[in-house]
Amino acid sequence: MCPVRAVTLEDLDDLAFGAALFGTGGGGSVDGQLLSAKAALAELGPVPLVDIDDLPPDSLVMPLSGIGAPVVSHEVLRNGHEAALIRAAVERELGRPVAAVMSSELGGGNGVEPVMWAARLGLPIVDGDGMGRAFPEVQMVTYYVCDMPVTPVFLSDVQGNVTVVHPVSGEWSEPIARSVTVAMGSSALMADYVLPAGVVKDAIVRSSMSRAIRVGRAVRTSTSPLAAIEAELNATRLITGKIREIERRTGGGFVRGSVIVEGSGADRDRLLRIEIQNENLIALEDGQPLAVVPDLISVVDSTTGRAIATEELKYGLRVAVMAWPCDPIWRTPKGLRTAGPEAFGYDVTYVPIEEVRRGRAS
Amino acid sequence: MCPVRAVTLEDLDDLAFGAALFGTGGGGSVDGQLLSAKAALAELGPVPLVDIDDLPPDSLVMPLSGIGAPVVSHEVLRNGHEAALIRAAVERELGRPVAAVMSSELGGGNGVEPVMWAARLGLPIVDGDGMGRAFPEVQMVTYYVCDMPVTPVFLSDVQGNVTVVHPVSGEWSEPIARSVTVAMGSSALMADYVLPAGVVKDAIVRSSMSRAIRVGRAVRTSTSPLAAIEAELNATRLITGKIREIERRTGGGFVRGSVIVEGSGADRDRLLRIEIQNENLIALEDGQPLAVVPDLISVVDSTTGRAIATEELKYGLRVAVMAWPCDPIWRTPKGLRTAGPEAFGYDVTYVPIEEVRRGRAS
Repeated sequence: MCPVRAVTLEDLDDLAFGAALFGTGGGGSVDGQLLSAKAALAELGPVPLVDIDDLPPDSLVMPLSGIGAPVVSHEVLRNGHEAALIRAAVERELGRPVAAVMSSELGGGNGVEPVMWAARLGLPIVDGDGMGRAFPEVQMVTYYVCDMPVTPVFLSDVQGNVTVVHPVSGEWSEPIARSVTVAMGSSALMADYVLPAGVVKDAIVRSSMSRAIRVGRAVRTSTSPLAAIEAELNATRLITGKIREIERRTGGGFVRGSVIVEGSGADRDRLLRIEIQNENLIALEDGQPLAVVPDLISVVDSTTGRAIATEELKYGLRVAVMAWPCDPIWRTPKGLRTAGPEAFGYDVTYVPIEEVRRGRAS
Repeated sequence: MCPVRAVTLEDLDDLAFGAALFGTGGGGSVDGQLLSAKAALAELGPVPLVDIDDLPPDSLVMPLSGIGAPVVSHEVLRNGHEAALIRAAVERELGRPVAAVMSSELGGGNGVEPVMWAARLGLPIVDGDGMGRAFPEVQMVTYYVCDMPVTPVFLSDVQGNVTVVHPVSGEWSEPIARSVTVAMGSSALMADYVLPAGVVKDAIVRSSMSRAIRVGRAVRTSTSPLAAIEAELNATRLITGKIREIERRTGGGFVRGSVIVEGSGADRDRLLRIEIQNENLIALEDGQPLAVVPDLISVVDSTTGRAIATEELKYGLRVAVMAWPCDPIWRTPKGLRTAGPEAFGYDVTYVPIEEVRRGRAS
């Protein structure tokens, strides 16, 4: 594990590269968030990166994430006040100050944006997150899997509207927050499970920010990026080839669709199909799943190893599809109920990527 | 004006009858609300009906209304805790106790339901409301027309979910609150413009609850109900006949459509078309408007004078269509911008019902 330190301006390219990999196609594109974070850290300096155990147990941690259709978040920029509005609502609602920001979702732009907000709010950021990857729905967070108390969900938008949802259960947070997001223009900033550090500390994926920085740096600086991804993430290369077919539709705050990758070289004559719901969820060959959510599936540029977001997929791109194991929390019964294939409506049994790999190797 | 007094169990049938007339087809059907209110008042006794001037200026008035598609509110009953959840959220958000309930919308079930909540919460009800009729959209209230400060919008549902919207403007309250309502199942209880009595007192339609009771009683007990409606409301009978055609569709929390009434007797060979958006909005004959929102248009049973809600309209019903002047606030420039025909997307110029009547008489 990296020692606790700070996120500096120099770390941001690595963080963005790593977060894109963990984004499995979603979590919002990192490019715009990277620019905003660079501007903030150039102006305000490094953001302290703290281990959650180093925060006083009663100090309030505010997990932030963008919610909405990624394709919209490309076009609707933040106004710079969204997090301050949420912080004010949190402090009014919960009656005490926010001590630290955290990413709710390591993957994609949502792994980078909270660094910018931490800088702007003058707060440290926790080295951890609520997924260790990206997921499309509000309740698909480790806090929910770990039965953390349901807290209000705070949303703010570019116009300055703020909405506070008090759901009766974690399940209700998704449809209401999603509807609010659509009314706000399909792009909003959200805080949920705003809890004291001592309560939430066992319900997060730890050290994931520093891991994203470390992985991003290793792959970016490697002369064999795909090999570096395999080594850093214990990842399997499912196929190398080019994108032959894409089907995408945006609606209800989601991007849904599928992509087909045609193998080349050693993978000639193979076809891999990826099912998408904001994120890459299942990779299939001849109808057989090779990798299944909650394990991570990333489509990367086959030359640079750079992860390609769902909405950046284009016909003819030369790619490799990489898959690796999710955080163990997602393999618990409640983890799989929450974010396994059935949770997305697929009639597919989850088999850990390591087992699939052993099966194919044998 | 009636003296300030109380709403008793004996007043409820009159209130419901009057509120249905002021509902112009919307505001939710009164039948279910009447039953709930009777049960509450039988159990808990009369509800004090107070003039807003008699409340201390700094006491908080909580306007309540059901929001959603009326056809859904027929099927989804309240659980009895919605108002208490909203009251708790209001008091937490605004930091002081609620002193009185008010109806946001006199017309339809929304004119009756707040009496039930006042009884259940042990609070008085203000003799007034925010429309003097019913309207389909959240911002179509006198508070908005009178530039009252925008306050949070509180919503609760049958599951127990509570959502607090802080809109940047009155206009934003509608799309966000509507989306939340749809996520809540297209039926929710709402409080908005929760303001001190001294602030909101000049931005309400006064004495409208006691007026609805008085009108309801006069028409119900009259041997000539249509004549009583004309006398009590300065109303014009646009046509007497039967319903020949209905077109309705429910979606996005609204009922939209139109109804055609075929004249009989002295009105033989006439056809009146009414455009509907939860409420009856425009009455046209040969393409010429005879009555235009914000003036009130009510379809009533031609024998009893009982108002027929949009979702109760049926082929063959024998009806009269009555129209009468709205509260003067709706005829101000901002009133017409907010709830005149253009606000509903109609390319029709508003002409007060009195002028149309004079034109037809001359």
